[in-house]
Amino acid sequence: MPIPSFGTIRLALLLVLFLPGNGAAVADSPIPAAEGYRETASRLIGEALTSADAYDNLEWLCDRIGHRLSGSEALDRAIDWAVTTMKTDGLDNVRAEPVLVPRWVRGRERARIVAPVVQELHMLGLGMSVGTPPDGIEAEVVAVSNFDELDRLGEPGIRGRIVLFDMPYTTYGNTSLYRANGPSRAAKHGAAAVLVRSVTPASLDTPHTGSLTYAENAPKIPAAAVTVENAAMIRRLLGRGEKVRVRLEMEATLHEPVQSANVIGEVTGREIPDEIVLVGAHIDSWDVGQGAQDDGAGCVIAMEAAHLIQRLGLRPRRTIRVVFFTNEENGMAGGKAYRDAYAAGLDRHVAAIESDAGNGLASGFNLDIRSLAGPTAGADSLRNAARTRELRKAALERLNAIAPLLETLGGSTMAAGGSGPDIDTIVQRGVAGLGLRHDTSRYYDIHHSKADTFEKIDRADLNRNVAILAVMAWALAEMPERLVEETPAARTNRVR
Amino acid sequence: MPIPSFGTIRLALLLVLFLPGNGAAVADSPIPAAEGYRETASRLIGEALTSADAYDNLEWLCDRIGHRLSGSEALDRAIDWAVTTMKTDGLDNVRAEPVLVPRWVRGRERARIVAPVVQELHMLGLGMSVGTPPDGIEAEVVAVSNFDELDRLGEPGIRGRIVLFDMPYTTYGNTSLYRANGPSRAAKHGAAAVLVRSVTPASLDTPHTGSLTYAENAPKIPAAAVTVENAAMIRRLLGRGEKVRVRLEMEATLHEPVQSANVIGEVTGREIPDEIVLVGAHIDSWDVGQGAQDDGAGCVIAMEAAHLIQRLGLRPRRTIRVVFFTNEENGMAGGKAYRDAYAAGLDRHVAAIESDAGNGLASGFNLDIRSLAGPTAGADSLRNAARTRELRKAALERLNAIAPLLETLGGSTMAAGGSGPDIDTIVQRGVAGLGLRHDTSRYYDIHHSKADTFEKIDRADLNRNVAILAVMAWALAEMPERLVEETPAARTNRVR
Repeated sequence: MPIPSFGTIRLALLLVLFLPGNGAAVADSPIPAAEGYRETASRLIGEALTSADAYDNLEWLCDRIGHRLSGSEALDRAIDWAVTTMKTDGLDNVRAEPVLVPRWVRGRERARIVAPVVQELHMLGLGMSVGTPPDGIEAEVVAVSNFDELDRLGEPGIRGRIVLFDMPYTTYGNTSLYRANGPSRAAKHGAAAVLVRSVTPASLDTPHTGSLTYAENAPKIPAAAVTVENAAMIRRLLGRGEKVRVRLEMEATLHEPVQSANVIGEVTGREIPDEIVLVGAHIDSWDVGQGAQDDGAGCVIAMEAAHLIQRLGLRPRRTIRVVFFTNEENGMAGGKAYRDAYAAGLDRHVAAIESDAGNGLASGFNLDIRSLAGPTAGADSLRNAARTRELRKAALERLNAIAPLLETLGGSTMAAGGSGPDIDTIVQRGVAGLGLRHDTSRYYDIHHSKADTFEKIDRADLNRNVAILAVMAWALAEMPERLVEETPAARTNRVR
Repeated sequence: MPIPSFGTIRLALLLVLFLPGNGAAVADSPIPAAEGYRETASRLIGEALTSADAYDNLEWLCDRIGHRLSGSEALDRAIDWAVTTMKTDGLDNVRAEPVLVPRWVRGRERARIVAPVVQELHMLGLGMSVGTPPDGIEAEVVAVSNFDELDRLGEPGIRGRIVLFDMPYTTYGNTSLYRANGPSRAAKHGAAAVLVRSVTPASLDTPHTGSLTYAENAPKIPAAAVTVENAAMIRRLLGRGEKVRVRLEMEATLHEPVQSANVIGEVTGREIPDEIVLVGAHIDSWDVGQGAQDDGAGCVIAMEAAHLIQRLGLRPRRTIRVVFFTNEENGMAGGKAYRDAYAAGLDRHVAAIESDAGNGLASGFNLDIRSLAGPTAGADSLRNAARTRELRKAALERLNAIAPLLETLGGSTMAAGGSGPDIDTIVQRGVAGLGLRHDTSRYYDIHHSKADTFEKIDRADLNRNVAILAVMAWALAEMPERLVEETPAARTNRVR
């Protein structure tokens, strides 16, 4: 058993000072963390719930800039808008930090059934897909529900065909694996192209795009999403023993990378300004709809949380840093660039919080503390995992001490879980990640589709999400102790 | 007070023979009508709930023929398919009765915002709209929520503009008035063109078409539906004081009428074959989606109800006549042609039942008995109205005597209400109309859009709807007395 470290002793001390006592005392005694921040929280919540700024900003981003894929002129304008808005908001150290991003351009595209009937398909090419030859690809379709079916068919059943992944929607995470990996999985068996049933639980003739990920060891074949309606029709025709032929034409092209940027603005800490609570979201979107919930909402929630703190003249102990990451959708170049640019400063990142699951009311926060991958084979040892569990437990207790402030807003649930795709790059390096637990019950209906538009933004939810994030960011930046006592470096040393 | 007629006396007699008694007796005694038909109903229900025919037929209609607007080659094929299928089903006197129908062709169409931003709009021209000049119409947009706002703006606010009807969705009936009448209402104030927010309670970037009705006394201007998302965006831009310009291009053309047909098949009655219980739906659809619920479902429900009766070797007292009306969507030529062709026989139409509200489970039937318009000013007299109420009440009591047979299926609610658009032509002339009370809670999400496709057909609901219609049609054709004792002619004479 390891000797208790200084860190552990400080943790124990903090628990005594900060956390609800045990046993019967809990119900009667006020919760110290919540009590200590109640006055500030009340100002933040009141301001958040009465302000029009987040909603107005998002409306502008959606209507005047619109969708903004990496490499597009619209994304450049969104980045300029973000810099200007953060400066106008009075944030400190506002800057755009250059990031090279891929420039994938959809071009014209079309898919249709040509036999046994002629039927236009409502499709969207998958992001990062290669195009077809100029005269398209026409082939017989074979449909599968999962990878097992694909592998059972193997090359004899697949070669030269167009594979339709007609998988039922379960969760986004599980279902989107077919979109991401299906093209290369099918290509390994010689498929000519891939169609994927749109990854969504609901459809009104609405295709949903999203990135594929080509494997190194498979030919790159073109791939597109079709609507749930189209996939079902193809499946029915096949089910009647018909041979179904589809013609796919896509001009999609991956051009040379171009310069984009992460946009950063801060509320400088009054005592430990080099310790950071990051609040982030991504500024890029797919090239359809308005990117209202993916992730315009996250951007204005993060920006407005910091703006409120600034506007109320509050200055927490640590720095709150707003980061709009670029290129989340098709490369994650913004998240990686941030990780690399701040590699030396990750120990001073007390927490990173991301909002990237729409604008559904956040029920609280997921806490994402990972076991660190160390340099040796023993890296992922039991000891490492056990230590991670201890740190996670202690951090969850700290979050739960803040939670009562969020209870009336509906945002007081704290649980272990995923944080966010952009901050994942630094969470992997030991930074404590938090993700807003947005209600996603309708999110995937519109996600990555033309239906991700501003009129679906519920203003009350948006304002409540701002309040929930503002209170959490404030508390994490203000509390005397770090959310996790042990820094990433200290944890890495321990693993080593 | 009128002297009781022979019909009234027979009605009273029938009530004694057929209907639940009054007072305490009801709860204890079996209901005669239901009891009398229980054995047949059980066979019909069992057969309906285990048969695959309705579902298979609808799948074929949707996938192999698809949408089928009046004047299209697809509608001709659907009519051929209907004749063949009714013959294969063993129906009697199967025939296609010629009907001249309009041939409106959408052609290419496009709408986009050109200022203050450039934004493609997702639109569908309204059925029967005129097209634009070849180079389109470009004008500033003015948005209104209702006709009052339109009229308040008047010519100074409207002339030369494109009017956007951005009315909230309330009910289909009320909201679709803007689609039907908005174009001419705006044209009277000098509008250049009209956009209408799609008439739907739900949208995932889904435009919904439908007919407009040009007024005689207004210029014919082009009109298109845009998505809820698009309408909201235009409204927001206008709300910020922007001038919004839209460019509309539509090739829509109304060609010379062409020949189509109503398709009719029968189960000939064994005793009074010239008395008819009509079960109907419409075979045409809009030119998008598959017309699965509007009104493919109605067609296969009506056809299968008759087919079941035929297949089980049942032969009711009266004739059950299946009618697939043509051209419901943009002219109602089928309903009018039927009325005219059978004008002399309407007295022998005991009831006309229509299914034209999708495939939601029918909770029962609406009963639609109208006051007759007579030849004199006294036509709509109090006496006429009072007599109609009496007839309606008596008929409802008869339906309620059948209702217990439908209780377990969920289809036992009988209420005064609308019947159906095709049979409306003969209901106006005094025929008793019935409409299946389909659950329409999701129907208008997909109605008249590309999302009206087969995979949304719930097979269990389809089979239950067949059962509900089959039992009702059987009972109305079998019961010794007519649903309404007094024929349309007798009622007309009374009014006169």
